[in-house]
Amino acid sequence: MRSGIERLFNPTSIAIVGASRDPSKIGHKILKNIIDYGFRGKIYPVNPKAEEILGFKCYPSLASIPDDIDVAILAIPATLTPSALEEAGRKGVKFAVVIASGFREVGNFELENMLVKIARKYDMRILGPNIFGYVYTPSKLNATFGPTNVLQGNVAFLTQSGALGIALMGYSIAESIGVSAVVSLGNKCDLDDVDMLEFFGDDENTGVILIYIEGLNRGRAFMDALMRVSLRKPVIVIKAGRTEIGRKAAASHTGSLAGSPVIWEKALKQAGAIQINDVETAFDVAKAFAWSPHPQGDRLLIITNGGGAGVQATDTLAEKGIELKPPPHEYVTNLKALLPPFASLANPVDLTGQASEELYHHALREALQHPGIDAILVLYCQTAVTEPTVLAEKILLTLRETEVKKPLAVGMVGGGETRKAISFLTSNKVPAYPTPERAANAIAYLLIYAKIRENLARKLSII
Amino acid sequence: MRSGIERLFNPTSIAIVGASRDPSKIGHKILKNIIDYGFRGKIYPVNPKAEEILGFKCYPSLASIPDDIDVAILAIPATLTPSALEEAGRKGVKFAVVIASGFREVGNFELENMLVKIARKYDMRILGPNIFGYVYTPSKLNATFGPTNVLQGNVAFLTQSGALGIALMGYSIAESIGVSAVVSLGNKCDLDDVDMLEFFGDDENTGVILIYIEGLNRGRAFMDALMRVSLRKPVIVIKAGRTEIGRKAAASHTGSLAGSPVIWEKALKQAGAIQINDVETAFDVAKAFAWSPHPQGDRLLIITNGGGAGVQATDTLAEKGIELKPPPHEYVTNLKALLPPFASLANPVDLTGQASEELYHHALREALQHPGIDAILVLYCQTAVTEPTVLAEKILLTLRETEVKKPLAVGMVGGGETRKAISFLTSNKVPAYPTPERAANAIAYLLIYAKIRENLARKLSII
Repeated sequence: MRSGIERLFNPTSIAIVGASRDPSKIGHKILKNIIDYGFRGKIYPVNPKAEEILGFKCYPSLASIPDDIDVAILAIPATLTPSALEEAGRKGVKFAVVIASGFREVGNFELENMLVKIARKYDMRILGPNIFGYVYTPSKLNATFGPTNVLQGNVAFLTQSGALGIALMGYSIAESIGVSAVVSLGNKCDLDDVDMLEFFGDDENTGVILIYIEGLNRGRAFMDALMRVSLRKPVIVIKAGRTEIGRKAAASHTGSLAGSPVIWEKALKQAGAIQINDVETAFDVAKAFAWSPHPQGDRLLIITNGGGAGVQATDTLAEKGIELKPPPHEYVTNLKALLPPFASLANPVDLTGQASEELYHHALREALQHPGIDAILVLYCQTAVTEPTVLAEKILLTLRETEVKKPLAVGMVGGGETRKAISFLTSNKVPAYPTPERAANAIAYLLIYAKIRENLARKLSII
Repeated sequence: MRSGIERLFNPTSIAIVGASRDPSKIGHKILKNIIDYGFRGKIYPVNPKAEEILGFKCYPSLASIPDDIDVAILAIPATLTPSALEEAGRKGVKFAVVIASGFREVGNFELENMLVKIARKYDMRILGPNIFGYVYTPSKLNATFGPTNVLQGNVAFLTQSGALGIALMGYSIAESIGVSAVVSLGNKCDLDDVDMLEFFGDDENTGVILIYIEGLNRGRAFMDALMRVSLRKPVIVIKAGRTEIGRKAAASHTGSLAGSPVIWEKALKQAGAIQINDVETAFDVAKAFAWSPHPQGDRLLIITNGGGAGVQATDTLAEKGIELKPPPHEYVTNLKALLPPFASLANPVDLTGQASEELYHHALREALQHPGIDAILVLYCQTAVTEPTVLAEKILLTLRETEVKKPLAVGMVGGGETRKAISFLTSNKVPAYPTPERAANAIAYLLIYAKIRENLARKLSII
């Protein structure tokens, strides 16, 4: 069953109630983002005091628009929302996106309940309130007051938190992570995580889902949806309010009960979610999922030019339950002739500090082509022998000239030139990170998810 | 008792045996770094085939130098090292820095033992072998083949790993972290972590010590020294080979036994070390220690403009055993008048998404001045209301105009402009990070170390 909210993400017409000529106003910023990001549907600013805003004819009311409206964005104060919602209902609007804060999160339950009542009466759905809007890049729709230049990609990012969520939109751009969607869920008075999981679970433009949650309204339904979706694509969950004291902080902030930390952890695990506690790792891992195929097995090979980086990665992997197996015999034999006698041909394969980009090229190409290797972690410590940017270009070239696609992560440690090399790789959709541990973590979760999916499939087939 | 190795770090004369005119050679790079970094002592290149290198008169042998030599850097192949060491001994050289690899780490124990024997005979100390050299910035001495432009500061970084260590020199520059020293310890055939702990424990140019260890030769002596030093300054230990499989990887790499992970963890904890498992967090925390005073108590205040960022930080702190207390009554009263009615005045103090840089300025200044607050975590989610770079300038200004010095960390989440703001702060020695969790971790360890020191003092006074 489809979730029935496709029209929210693929609207043919959008009205912005509270559109403003004043660039400091949210009603201006959202309209401007919708226009600037290139939305191709119809755009109707609504403001009784303006004739035209940003080149678009302005309407005094929703009722006066001579067209059907799929989505109405209400960028008006909380107190004015109920009457605007009534008007939207009468107009036959399908989705109301309520931006304003000042509802349940500040104890104003009554006003929020009123919204729900009105929406039910007209069979209209509400996103919000207390949100910064939403993005769906396949429709070229950026209906937020966040950054305009969101990158197109296949990560759907759903967030209960507003300020952190909008800041993470910017973070995703700085990290070269493309998104299919960003959805600000806020108080979730109607549409919630369950609806979104159902939509993005089916959405072919979405390869990985990343959710920031403080609390849920429908715990059981969420876990059920999570399990169904996790069978098809990875769902990364940042669960805020994991500790007792954090839970209280979250409760005071959203007004929603955050649930016992222990129960959360168990339930998420059982449902196949990938729980990650910090935003850096969550986006690191989302990036790896976004750009990598699923591994065909768990035989991971580490290629490094520094023993220490290899040890740090090995520890990180082992702490996540991933054990390295010795590399295939032919792979080692093939490499041996090219390496100094003291190079380690175990796993990690240590090409030594003398490793040139040619040697990396060879070791990586052979690893990509060998059927006994399922995933590859390339580590590099900046040396005078190899320029990091040259190596980065070589890695990209190797990936392009090899037909085989395998999960790969790159960890590059060093100074300014190394940072440039990392940016080069990530802007070419190769997951690269500035430390061995971050790269190891990213590839670890690819392998972990493959196992999760296997276990879920077994469990569900038994049921 | 002083460790007797001051002269290694404050030499009046250095000889570089194997100095070369060929820029691709290590013997060239080390000499060039010594010159370029501005070493003010005497520099003697040694090479029988050259008259002059990089503007310095070259000597055919150590014996032919008409001066006493404190430090001889041997940048020659392993097989030539014993005879050069004999020559150094006869010359009365105090410290031999043996760069070459090809000893114990590849199973060549005999050759390494020979070095030790020769050194003992002449009462000479050896740093190495299998190292990239060392740096001591108070002497303007960079005797490595790593990056030249190491930043001057108060972090002493000691590393068993060569390639990772040299790459982390670059990493420290990229992260604006200044060092007092970088010491490549390699095979530690003579001088080891214990000697270094003793020296840097007493060294007034060093405020924090960061050690990357795979294995130890003198476990008991190390733990004793660690405890003595931890009483005076924080010692961060990255223990590689923490897991059984990581231990094997480390053993194959260094030839040293890495010790049982559980025993390590216990011993390090008992000795007061701050064990951190990944290089990113280790350098994050080193930066906070380097630039912050010690806290006078454990009352930490979080100031944020985003509830979600506050919750993530609260969780991170709670997971490290740090509980937030409510902010002082007068602090709250003072702030109340300036905030919207729905702002949370608990801890975290939520200035809300509408917070201007002026509001941050006020909240931070009052927190710095209030005697009931010991440490401050400032969090910021990029919004349209406040420019991140303007806020960063405001934070710096507030710190400068306030006389009181308190531990502070800043977490700023957002896009490119936010990254610039973080760089601005770190280049002005304000510890700033791109996620709430990294900032929370950094300040957490400052509070944790204060407790460690208290406990150590109690324990040692009882003994």
